[in-house]
Amino acid sequence: MGETTKKSVVLLSGGLDSATVMAMALKDGYDVYAVSFQYGQRHSIELDCAAEQAGAAIQHKIVDIDLSSFGGSALTADIDVPKHGGVEELTDEIPVTYVPARNTVFLSYALAWAEVLEAHDIFIGVNALDYSGYPDCRPEFIAAYETMANLATVAGVQGNKLKIHTPLIDLTKAEIIQRGKELGVDYAKTTSCYDPAPDGRACGHCDSCLLRLKGFSDAGLSDPRPYVED
Amino acid sequence: MGETTKKSVVLLSGGLDSATVMAMALKDGYDVYAVSFQYGQRHSIELDCAAEQAGAAIQHKIVDIDLSSFGGSALTADIDVPKHGGVEELTDEIPVTYVPARNTVFLSYALAWAEVLEAHDIFIGVNALDYSGYPDCRPEFIAAYETMANLATVAGVQGNKLKIHTPLIDLTKAEIIQRGKELGVDYAKTTSCYDPAPDGRACGHCDSCLLRLKGFSDAGLSDPRPYVED
Repeated sequence: MGETTKKSVVLLSGGLDSATVMAMALKDGYDVYAVSFQYGQRHSIELDCAAEQAGAAIQHKIVDIDLSSFGGSALTADIDVPKHGGVEELTDEIPVTYVPARNTVFLSYALAWAEVLEAHDIFIGVNALDYSGYPDCRPEFIAAYETMANLATVAGVQGNKLKIHTPLIDLTKAEIIQRGKELGVDYAKTTSCYDPAPDGRACGHCDSCLLRLKGFSDAGLSDPRPYVED
Repeated sequence: MGETTKKSVVLLSGGLDSATVMAMALKDGYDVYAVSFQYGQRHSIELDCAAEQAGAAIQHKIVDIDLSSFGGSALTADIDVPKHGGVEELTDEIPVTYVPARNTVFLSYALAWAEVLEAHDIFIGVNALDYSGYPDCRPEFIAAYETMANLATVAGVQGNKLKIHTPLIDLTKAEIIQRGKELGVDYAKTTSCYDPAPDGRACGHCDSCLLRLKGFSDAGLSDPRPYVED
């Protein structure tokens, strides 16, 4: 297995899930190298949140990537973000906020950095329950990615197997929030909204806001993040 | 299988192999959407070559990616490119010119674009014979990538399977050049050198030059690309 290392690369989006994942990695004794992506998002609020959260990391890189040049998503292109009256209006269909191959691209950068750092652990906050129907959030995708990654790299070829950790994969949003609160995550420093106001307040009606609000409600907690309608 | 499409995404590096692959895709009747990467290379000569070759493509995108910020390779960091007297000095070791996770990152962008284009075919010029020991040029890597990709995307989930074509995978460099010449590839517009002179002439002594020169020699042809020592 080669030398042991506790270095880890954590995908940090600025959202609630990845903030919780970073707290879990730190709790498990990993040194955290956090990576965030500027990928043609409509707003920079999530990167501001990621930078605030990254104080506990050894290093934080914000990588510029150019997915918007391919178009194809309401999060990066000129398509309206859908709004709903409540969580009961969400369907199982893959929504227009899906960014093509996003987690595949993000994990590939994490893999590149892990290889340079000689880290064997990548953490990503994907979730198969409240996952908005994105195919690249499913456990079978993560397993296939890990298999591929261990064939792609020098470390993998030499037997230093890379592991992709998905500690949220089978938790509900309420369970994620409860775990994070136990670990001291400050959810005021996380954003989830797909379409926030310019001052950072959340819209309260996109898929992501509705899932977040239901999570806090189910956990019996109030969301410290400000909303437009507060 | 859904509607048939002949759209394809071709990874075009500016080198000899990918120029040949593009010619093969065109010969097979595919519309070509070519993608090249600015990834912190020491020189832009290969992108100039890619742009010259891309005249036959429907569209050519040059995507800026930021692998150099992670360091770790003689092709993107401040490490000397190794030079040799001849091809007999090449070893089986993974060389310092290896760029961490490069093909994984490149294929992930190709996958994102293919998904937006609704293309089901990606072409990449990897080669398992003259492959310089890079783990991400092996057939088992490509197969694992394809499996992962079909779990990552909406198209894959809906049964429109993505295929990664590697028509050079078991050809020698001489065979690649012979195939390309039959298809009319102008190898003067391709560059392979890891460390060219500022005017674009190839060094003639890096791993890549030595494999290329041996290929032309074995094919009984002369390389139309100028070398420093010509």
